[in-house]
Parts: sequence; C-alpha cells; structure tokens
Amino acid sequence: MQNYFDDKNREFVIADMYPRRPWLNYLWNDQTVSSVNQFGFGNSFSMLSNRRRNIENGERHVYIKDRKSGEYYSANRNFDKLPFDKHECHVGLGYQKIISEYNGIRTEFIITLPKGGCALQFDIKVENISEEEKEIDVYFYNQPLPSLSYEAYGVADYDEELQGILYSHIGYRVTMPYTHLYLASEKQIHSYDACYNRFCGVYTTLAKPNGLTTDTLANLGLSNDKYVGVFQYRLSLKKSEIFETVIACGVARNREECIELAKQYANKNSFEQSLQDQKDMNEAYTDTFTMQSDDDIMDSQVNVWLKRQISLGKTWGRIYGKGFRDTLQDLTAFVSFDPKFARERLLYILKHMFEDGNTIRMFEPNFRYPYNDGATWIPAAILAYLNESGDVGVLDEKIPYIKGNTKENTSYVEGVVTYEDYSKICTEETYSVFDHLQRAMDYLYGCRGKRGLILLHGGDWNDSLNAVGKLGKGEGVWLTIATVKAYNEFIQILKIAKKEERISEFVSRREELKACIMKHGFESDRFIYCYNDYDEKIGSEDSPEAKIFLNPQTWSVLGNVAEKEILESVMDSVESNLACDFGYIQCNPPFTKGSDRIGRVSYFFGGNVENGSVYNHGVAFKAVADCLLGRGDAAYKTLKLIRYDNPKNLNSGVEPYAVTNMYTGPYNRYLKGYAPDSWITGTAGWTYRCITEYFCGVQAAFEGLKIAPCLPTTWNKLNVTRKFRGATYRIAFERGDCNKILVNGKEIVGNVVPLQAEGTECDVRVYFR
Amino acid sequence: MQNYFDDKNREFVIADMYPRRPWLNYLWNDQTVSSVNQFGFGNSFSMLSNRRRNIENGERHVYIKDRKSGEYYSANRNFDKLPFDKHECHVGLGYQKIISEYNGIRTEFIITLPKGGCALQFDIKVENISEEEKEIDVYFYNQPLPSLSYEAYGVADYDEELQGILYSHIGYRVTMPYTHLYLASEKQIHSYDACYNRFCGVYTTLAKPNGLTTDTLANLGLSNDKYVGVFQYRLSLKKSEIFETVIACGVARNREECIELAKQYANKNSFEQSLQDQKDMNEAYTDTFTMQSDDDIMDSQVNVWLKRQISLGKTWGRIYGKGFRDTLQDLTAFVSFDPKFARERLLYILKHMFEDGNTIRMFEPNFRYPYNDGATWIPAAILAYLNESGDVGVLDEKIPYIKGNTKENTSYVEGVVTYEDYSKICTEETYSVFDHLQRAMDYLYGCRGKRGLILLHGGDWNDSLNAVGKLGKGEGVWLTIATVKAYNEFIQILKIAKKEERISEFVSRREELKACIMKHGFESDRFIYCYNDYDEKIGSEDSPEAKIFLNPQTWSVLGNVAEKEILESVMDSVESNLACDFGYIQCNPPFTKGSDRIGRVSYFFGGNVENGSVYNHGVAFKAVADCLLGRGDAAYKTLKLIRYDNPKNLNSGVEPYAVTNMYTGPYNRYLKGYAPDSWITGTAGWTYRCITEYFCGVQAAFEGLKIAPCLPTTWNKLNVTRKFRGATYRIAFERGDCNKILVNGKEIVGNVVPLQAEGTECDVRVYFR
Repeated sequence: MQNYFDDKNREFVIADMYPRRPWLNYLWNDQTVSSVNQFGFGNSFSMLSNRRRNIENGERHVYIKDRKSGEYYSANRNFDKLPFDKHECHVGLGYQKIISEYNGIRTEFIITLPKGGCALQFDIKVENISEEEKEIDVYFYNQPLPSLSYEAYGVADYDEELQGILYSHIGYRVTMPYTHLYLASEKQIHSYDACYNRFCGVYTTLAKPNGLTTDTLANLGLSNDKYVGVFQYRLSLKKSEIFETVIACGVARNREECIELAKQYANKNSFEQSLQDQKDMNEAYTDTFTMQSDDDIMDSQVNVWLKRQISLGKTWGRIYGKGFRDTLQDLTAFVSFDPKFARERLLYILKHMFEDGNTIRMFEPNFRYPYNDGATWIPAAILAYLNESGDVGVLDEKIPYIKGNTKENTSYVEGVVTYEDYSKICTEETYSVFDHLQRAMDYLYGCRGKRGLILLHGGDWNDSLNAVGKLGKGEGVWLTIATVKAYNEFIQILKIAKKEERISEFVSRREELKACIMKHGFESDRFIYCYNDYDEKIGSEDSPEAKIFLNPQTWSVLGNVAEKEILESVMDSVESNLACDFGYIQCNPPFTKGSDRIGRVSYFFGGNVENGSVYNHGVAFKAVADCLLGRGDAAYKTLKLIRYDNPKNLNSGVEPYAVTNMYTGPYNRYLKGYAPDSWITGTAGWTYRCITEYFCGVQAAFEGLKIAPCLPTTWNKLNVTRKFRGATYRIAFERGDCNKILVNGKEIVGNVVPLQAEGTECDVRVYFR
Repeated sequence: MQNYFDDKNREFVIADMYPRRPWLNYLWNDQTVSSVNQFGFGNSFSMLSNRRRNIENGERHVYIKDRKSGEYYSANRNFDKLPFDKHECHVGLGYQKIISEYNGIRTEFIITLPKGGCALQFDIKVENISEEEKEIDVYFYNQPLPSLSYEAYGVADYDEELQGILYSHIGYRVTMPYTHLYLASEKQIHSYDACYNRFCGVYTTLAKPNGLTTDTLANLGLSNDKYVGVFQYRLSLKKSEIFETVIACGVARNREECIELAKQYANKNSFEQSLQDQKDMNEAYTDTFTMQSDDDIMDSQVNVWLKRQISLGKTWGRIYGKGFRDTLQDLTAFVSFDPKFARERLLYILKHMFEDGNTIRMFEPNFRYPYNDGATWIPAAILAYLNESGDVGVLDEKIPYIKGNTKENTSYVEGVVTYEDYSKICTEETYSVFDHLQRAMDYLYGCRGKRGLILLHGGDWNDSLNAVGKLGKGEGVWLTIATVKAYNEFIQILKIAKKEERISEFVSRREELKACIMKHGFESDRFIYCYNDYDEKIGSEDSPEAKIFLNPQTWSVLGNVAEKEILESVMDSVESNLACDFGYIQCNPPFTKGSDRIGRVSYFFGGNVENGSVYNHGVAFKAVADCLLGRGDAAYKTLKLIRYDNPKNLNSGVEPYAVTNMYTGPYNRYLKGYAPDSWITGTAGWTYRCITEYFCGVQAAFEGLKIAPCLPTTWNKLNVTRKFRGATYRIAFERGDCNKILVNGKEIVGNVVPLQAEGTECDVRVYFR
C-alpha cells in the first residue's frame, strides 16, 4: 500500500487510504470550484450573480449491494475496512478517480466538472470481474444543498423529464436567481430518495444506512428536512459485463434550465469531453517547464503538481476570496503556463485598485480592511508577464479603478465582507495598466512616516500584525524593503517599456528608502519588522518577545537593500534563531501576551497561524534568498525541510502532491509539525519560482532565456525543457570545471540564451562549477 | 420495551431508546439552560454579560472497557445495539438519568445542574452486579465549547489543582469576560485527552474511538483543533462494589474561578443538593393542581409535564430569545405554580414595552421587527396573576419602559437581533404596572386604520404574515378580536382594582371594535384574517388561496365578539374546513404562490410552519373555544387529536411527555404528521389552561375558586386537588341529574367556592349533568 506519483498519467495514486487527515484535490472551472478528498467526498459551489451558490457538500457514496446475500458496502469509502482486493484513489488534474475491487466487482467512481458552467459530473462504472453472473444493486448518494435560506421554503421531488430529482427553493426575500438544483442520471434509475433521515436513519451512519436494508428506496421527495439525493440501479451483470452511468448535479434558474443542463451534462459524451478538456488544458500547462533531476519528488512537484496548485490560486485565490496580493503572486508564477490567459487575469486583478494607487485587500467578496502592502506586489507580476510574453502592449491596456481613495473606501472593522457588483463600484473612465502601475509606485512613496519608512495602516503580508499601524503612525521595515524590491522591478519595467523618463527619480527614491531602512530598521544581525503606533519596535533584540522575524531578513536579500556581507549575516541569523526540524518559524520566541498595540498575531497561542509557526510561504522566500546569495545547499536543504518527505516530520498530514500554508510551530507542543490544510497558499507559486528560476536558474528575461543555476554541491547534472515565446529549449546542466553555456553547440557570451524562432527546438548545454 | 409515565417519581421512562427522532428533556436554572436527549447528548449555554456563552454541545459518553478482553461500549448510547439487560432513560424534572446493565456491569449516568450558576453536573455510577471481580476502565467523554472566536487563540491542558482540564481562550477582540472553561473530576483520573481527532480519530466515529484501543489516553492537551474532554478511570470492582464520581463542566472568568467552581460543583454533596433543589422546586409546582380522571395520559400531562414545559417557557422563552408575547402567555399559565416568582417575572417582562404602550417582539436578544400584537397579551397575564394571588398591589409597582416610541425603535429589517444591555435602553423614570397596562390598551385603540380595525404593521400572532401591514395600511381582524378580548380582561381588572373611572369608555371602545369586526371582518360562515396594505382580504372566501384561517374563528369565541349563533357557526366552519386526522390546520388551502403582499407564510411549502400545518398553539385555542361554547366532546376530541397517542398519528416523533409546536400539515405529503420539535411552544400553557380552567373548569377568580366544568359526555367523574391562596381544595366531580356544588357538605349559590382560610383543606363536591 505504497502511494506513488504516476507522472506519466499526471496522477498521484493514494494506495494507503487513511492518511493522518483527509487528502484533498481541487477541481474547478471559472464558475465552479470543488474540493474532493480521497474517498470522493467534498463540497462545491459556483459564483453566480456575484454570490456563492452552494451545489453540494459532504459525503458521496457508491454503494454496492449483493441482492442474494443482502451484503453491501460503500465502494469508495469502505467503512468497515473490508478486505478489498484494491482500494485506491487516483488524484488527477481536474478529476478524482476512486477504484475498488471486492468480491468480484470492480467499481470506478470518477468526479469531474465541465470546462465551464455550474455542475459536477459523476461517472460510475461497475464491472463484474468474477466468473459468475452477479445480481447487484448499485446506489449513488450525495448531499445537494438546495436551500438558499430555510428548508421550509424548499421542496425536492423526482421529475420524469429531468430523469432525476429536482430541488426548488423559491423563498421569501431570496434574491439569488439560481433557485433550482438538479441531480440527474443518464441511465434509468430503479428507485430514489431525497431525505437524509429517511434514507440513512436517525440512529445510524452512512456506513449502515437504513435505505440499503430494503428492496427499493422510498421513492419519495421531501420538504423541510435534510435534503440528499439517492439513486438505486438494479443490475444483473454477466462475467466481464460493465454497467456505467453518468450523473450530473448543478444549479439553474428554473425547471426548464435544469432539464436542459441535465440532458447536457448527464451523459457519457459530455463526461468524456470534460475529462479531455481538463487533460488538454493541464498538458499545455505542465509542458511549459519540465525537469529531470536525481530528485524524483522535486521533479513531480515542479513538472505537475505545483503548476496545478498555482493555477487554482490564479483563478480562485484563497477560495474564501480573491486576495489582491495573493492572486498577483500566483499569477507571477502562472505567467509561463498560459501567457494569454495570464494577461486576462492580470487586467482583471489590477482593476481592484483605488484611484490613489493602493489596492483592495480581497475581492469577490470584497474585504476592505486597509492593508497597505498591495501595491508592492504589482511590478513583479507585470515584469514576469513582460519577460514571459514580450508583450509591452499590455501596459497600454485600459481598465478602471475602484472609485475613490483608500481612506474613504476602507475601514478598520474586520470581518466585514460584501458581495458588491464591481460594475457599480468602478470608475467610469478607464486608465492604462501603466497608469495603474505608476500610481501604485507613487502611492507607496507618498505614504511614509516620520522615519521615512512606509506606513503600515491596516498591515502588510503578515495579516495578523493588524494593529501596529491603526493610528496611522506605525511604519514597516519589511514593507519598506518590499517597496525597494518593487522599485527595482519597476525600474526594469521602465527600461523594457522604454519609458526612461522616471528612472532616475525612482533610483533616487529607492536609495532614500534604503538609507531609511539601514538607519531605522537594521540592528547588527537583523532587520526589525516594524515600529508600531507607539514607537515600539517589533522584531527587535529589544522587544520583549518575537525578537526576530523571518521575512525582513529574507526580503532584504530579495530587495537587495544592503551590502552582501550584511545580507549574509542576517541570513545567518535566520539559521541560528529561526530554524527548526521542519522549516523556519515566522518569529521567535512566539508572542505569549496579547497586545492591542500589535494585533491578533500576539493573541494566537504560540505555534499557531503567524505566531511562531513554520509559515511556508515565508520559508519559500527564504529559499529564494539562499539562491540569490549563491547558497544552493542551504536552498535545497530548506526546500526539503518543508517537503512531505522530511524524515523528521513524516506525519505532518500534508498531501504529497500539494504544499501547505503552514506547519504548526514547535511551541504548540500538542500539534507541532501538523499541516492543517494545503492547496490555497502562496507557497506554491514561490516554491515553483524558487526551483525553476533561482535553483535551476531558468528565468524568462525580456531579451531571452536567462540561465543562472544555484544548485547544491551534491548535484552534478540536471535536464530541463522550457517552452518560451513559442520555442522549446532543451537544457542540459552538467557540473564541470568552469561556467559556460553552449546554445546549439556554440558558446554564448553572458548567460542569456537569445530568443529562438517560434516552433523551433534549441539545445542548450550549461556547464557549472 | 414499553415506555411509561412513572408519576410517583415524576419521571417518564424511555425503554425503547430509538424513537423516530431523539427525545429531548430540558434542564435549566436562571442562568443556564441545557437540552438533553435520551442518550444524555445535548447542548448547554449560559446568559452572561448579556450574551450567550456556550458550555458544551453534542455527544456525551460513559464508556465501559473490560481490561481483560479489551471489549468496550458506550453505556448510554450502545452504538452497536449490544444485548443490554437494561437500557433506559429516566426523563426527570431537572435531571436526566440513563441506566444500562450489560455483562455484569450496571451504569447510571445522571445529568443535572445546580440551582444557580453556569455549570453542568454529571454523575457516573458503575456497579459490579456480577458474581466475580471486574477489571474495568471507565471513560467520560464530552464536547466542551471553549472557543469564543477562533480555535487558534485557545489552549486546553490538564491542571493538577483543578483536577481536570482547563480550557482558556483569551483571544483578539474577545470582550466576553468568561474566557475560561473547566471540566473537573471529583475522583482522581488515570489519564485524559483534549483532542477529538486524537481521541476519536479521523476515520472512525465515537462508536469506535481510537482512544479506547490503547491502554491509557494520550495525556495531552490541545491548541487549534476540535476540543473535547475525556477522562479515564481505572477500576477493580469486587462483587456489588460501586464506583461513583461527579464531573462538573462550566465557565468562569479565569483559572482561579474555575478551580473554585470545580471544587464547589465536582463533588457528590453538591450533586445531591442540586437534585434535591430540583425536586423541591418541582414538587411545589406540581402540587398546585392535580387531577385523577379515567384518562391517565391527560392526568400525567397536567399533573407533571405541562407544568414543566410552561416553567421552561416563563424563564427561557423560546430559548433563542424571550418573546414578549410568548413569555407572557407562559406566565399566564404559570401564575398558579408560584405566584411570588410569577410576580417577579411579570414585572421583568413588562419592562420591555416602549413608552407608547406597544411592546418589543423579543428580548434577550432584542428583536425589533414592529409586530403589533404585543399589547393584547398583557391584561390576560395581569388578570391571571390578580385572580391567583389577590395581590392588587402589583399594579402600583414601578418599572421603566424601553426609551422612545415604536416607530423610532423598530425596523422592518428582519433577522436583526442585538444583545443590548437593558439598563442602557430603559427610561430613567419608572411607571406603575397599571400605567403600563393603560398605555398598552390605549396604544391599540389609537392604532387603527380606515375600517376602524387595528393596524397590523409588522404582523401579529402569525409571525409569518409579516408583509400584510408593512405600508401601515393593513388592518387585522384577528388582531381586533384579540383587542376585544384584551378589553374584556382590562375591564375586569378595572373592577378588581376598583379603578372604575375608565370602564364605560372601554366598554364603548369595545363595542365600537366589535361593530367594525362584524362590518368588515365577517363573512356568513367565517371571520377573515385581515386586510393587507392593498385592501386585499386574507382568509376570505374571495381569497385565491388560504380562504379560511383557524384563529379568527376560535378567538371570536374567546373574545365573545358576536352572538352565540354566529360563534357556533364559525366553529362549525372550522370543523368542515380545517379538520384533519391529527388536528386542525392553520389555513386552508395552503398558499402555493409566494407574495410580498402577504409575507413569508406564502412562500413556505404547504404544510410547513404557519402555512397549513397543524399549529398546536392554535389548536389549543380551538379547544378552549369548544369549552366556551359548551362543546365538551369537541374539546376532548381536539385535545386527543394532537396528543402523541392519536392512533392516526402514532409515528409523529413527538415526546409523550412534551407537546409540540407543530405537526407538518397534510399538504406536505413527505412529512405530514411529523413533529420536528417540541417543548418551546405556547401550546403547553394553553393546553394546560384549557384542561384545568375550561375543561375541568377550575378557575382562579378574584373572589374565590370558580367551578365551571365542560366535560365530555363519556366522563362521569373526576377528582381534582387545587391549591389556591394557601388553602387546598379537594374537588370531586360526579355526573348527576342537576348542576350543584357542595362546599364542605353545604350547597353554595352560584359557582364560586368562597376563599378558605390559609392552611385549611376544603371538600368540594360538584354534580354536573
């Protein structure tokens, strides 16, 4: 029962079905997103009319019942740990497949969704793999969520024309037009039920539902109780005979639309098309960069899985909402997979800025707490897009702002999210992307405190340092470093776009900021995090707790804010102050005294969330910083520390095919090393960029493909294939006695492989010491 | 496995532990309320700092493990339906006791709570009833709810001094001072756990928790996951030996308070005292009226259980809040149980009126939708209290109002509840109860529409007819009838209080209202419900649906608004239009077309909530009306129709010892006859008053005990004991050939037994035809 990466099929195969916590896969299109675990359980919703519309949630089952013996089991869940001959989950890109074999019956349960639209598709395939004929009943069970307010308004019942159950909810003051939900079957059903308490029973669980002990289901709908959907199929299967049906579940505005969509999606052709669409999209994405090293796990991460995770982020953000900062970072990594789509997303994201150049914290739904770091993330994304695509024209594209300035559009009241319609809050006039970018850069410079550092207001990357700047006085050292990094990138963009008129101004602004950082933010072996509204230092040797933070050190390298010796020394401080068995903690020692001069981070129990956890997003910054300092061994060690196969943290619970936001830090002795969740984290994008751009060192540049590896001393070779501007670069790295690069056999000067003609393949040999 | 009422012990014994839905008991004091089912599962919260503070929720278990065989089971739940020798639940007044006997072990699990304070007490008694010595481990499991916001802020760990687990939650922006929770054991524990996922496991259920498969529990606390509490006790029990421990779970402001309360409550003496306190209180209540008829079930209802349900209502309202109308009605029934306490509650409730004489819809939390019926319920409660106590002085007690008038203090935005501190919203000056009563009566008269009927504004008793009067034009026929009834009662109060100066004014107002009712509200065989803002009739022969409502007919009798012939004919209409197998439906036919001119009732699927369900509160009004018309047979039939033992609705799911708010109506073919919940309903008070005051006909009057029975033709005798103004009246009813009443052997004139001296017993013989 060994789990494994099946790179050929771009699958991860879960053979041990009982990891520490359920392992998730995500399925999505632009309208609908669904999480699904190794048993096929999950939840899904669509964004419709600017709101979330739930589709279904929880357990799904394919029950098999032997009609002669009356014995039954859930083929995907196997509650009783029956001695299945096979029970495994194929985690796919855009689908989830659970296979089981027991008692001569092979069952495949596949979940996917169409390329667009608000529906899930379930395929059930049952095969008689025994020698004799089988009389079996097959049941499908799921938990649709038709209610838009209160169950007493709704009703569910079988609809002949739909060939399934129609759930309607036309309730009082329900404004969501998608009031109908369907669960439809391709093949004729034998019976159905729509009530949880009737089907399952009040004193039983879905391991032993009452409905499986009777010959047929109740054939009854429901109003005003817990709605479910259950179909029964009555089969006689000869040896090798296969039964297959496709089931669709989705939402629509009325019965007629439900019938139409059910016909469209509840059939085998549509299901196969969905799988093909997913395959096509994901193959195109995964082909953009592939590596073959001696580290199979890193290969699988980079070649397949991180891409998928980044792709989720760039469309769905953090699922609970689309963080401006978050989607931009994901996009910065995503640009190479599909530059055309990246362009679209870039324009979409940048629309969520205020007229003063600052950004909203999160959109869809909108969260307007006045975080002040949004602008710093913009140039990296634009630069990445320009380098990848060469498309300078994007800077002239025109898009609106959110009407008004930060001050009048944000509030310090947390937790308030609204589903505003963007068209109602945006400016009538549109402005170029370059205008957006310039306003963002100017906003930061104009928003500084008495020390010349950028003001924090509601906070920065560290969401939970949310009270340091509420009075408008607190200044960020990290935030100023991030601004320097942004200015570095902005200056590059100015050069690329041949808009050199503001370069000298920004060079001088940058140097001014660097001087302020060194004067007010540097302490012999560390950069502090910030000053709060009360002139207290956070993350300083003088601080009572949380004396050092990870990010100011790593970003000092990313922003190149000081001499190399200083950068090296603060990174050494990271090693001596923040290292633990499974990564680097965000701050040390953790806060133990809640303070309203600091924010919620100080109230979290130590080791949780941002308070002294191993926050992997930050650890990925650290690995990039290692590479930038030429510390390949440190970078590799760091990347492996936070991997699922770290021998000192094998029971973290994280999916091998996904990276996690956070490992609980050592101070929380009850759960240290535990990864509560994964997928929705900036760690994916930064880990991907770290490995591909800084570790392997294959970087898109405006004028060509830059090669600057920083591999560990234990690596002697590496092969990379990179698609770039329509050409394919096959790059072979080999350790030698000097650094040189041969392109199609000819050594080049410098480290930028010149652009190749579209459609060509190019052979690159990289020798490194 | 026959369930039964054990009236001697004031218990209901559940021997069949698997009813259609879980059966609840309620335990409460003035600060804390807990619901608990037949397995001992439940939830509990306290009102503290004007807010709800959860204590615990969900499953509770007493597991027994045989150390030799490793076999274990939950003694209270018996998940696997093991062949227990005994498994029953004793539903007590103020406690719940689950007894099981299996494999030579008898287990008693008793749950109660102290007379005051924020704690639950659990008593576990394990006895070796076999012949040989037993080596067993006993485990206690429950689900405390320490979190006040987000789990990452909290931490739970064992505390030696506490002798249990201390859960603390000092989170960001947490204003609730009760940040600590304890689970403490009287007896020394062997081991503990505080984490659900560790104890139970991710892939198992509480039927087979992982923690029971190891020798000891993890002995580990938790931060940032699902908190539970588990104690293990290691025992060797000789034949007949008993192990007993008391466990307490409660909330406090800090560790020191937790330790103090744990010491106070986690001990046998305190537990016994709690049971004794509950017993004393409930015996005093139940002794006020007892009946012995040929109908044992009615006897049990009236003698014990309805009183308990009414008592819950008068303190905790509907649990989700304290409805002004609801608590007043419960109090109207409660007054005889404890007049002193009733007086306190009456003053407390009446404080929740606006200065214009109208009332808030609900308090604690406050719900300010502008319902307009609140004032009509006041005189009945005051009159009941005056009649019961003779205490006219209550009318001079001074209490404040809620500052301001209805208009400026209510809003048509539904669903908004606030936890305002009463002291901050009340008037500085105080006013007499009589002033409150007068303002209420004047408010109604002053609030009339063009037909002279009372305006509906946000609605009336029928909460879901909430859009009929939103524009300020809709007028209520039922509401005007209710006002007539209120004026009848007010006039009686004026007489009792010898404040006759306004009698003639109110008699003339009443007659004016009656004339308007007859002119605009009466249609040959029915009273309509109302006119909405658009001059459309609701509940009329002309209405497209919902052509007749129950309450206007029954209340026309209660309010005596017309000639007896008319009242009889509308009640005949009820029989022909609204009767079904298990009661009388609220309206017929149900609404099928949602209309914003009517309100949410029209959106409910037919049969649900107020839309064509058997709403028992209304059915109890109907039974009172039957009695008032001298229709004893109809009243008895009606009362039996909604009882749990109605042979045509035996599977309703309702607790035999509680009445339900509602049976799902016949139009909902999926769930018709089903009782989703119980306990928190005005049905209890009205059923109790119907049986005691109108059916048995024993009514407190200001000048004595009025006797006016309306018994069915099948009843020939009845015995009632009534405590009244300090004396005890033993009343024997017997069918004879004339109506006469003998008091201590002497026939009296009229039907009011004169007041007897305090402390005396009085023999009353009632002969009726």
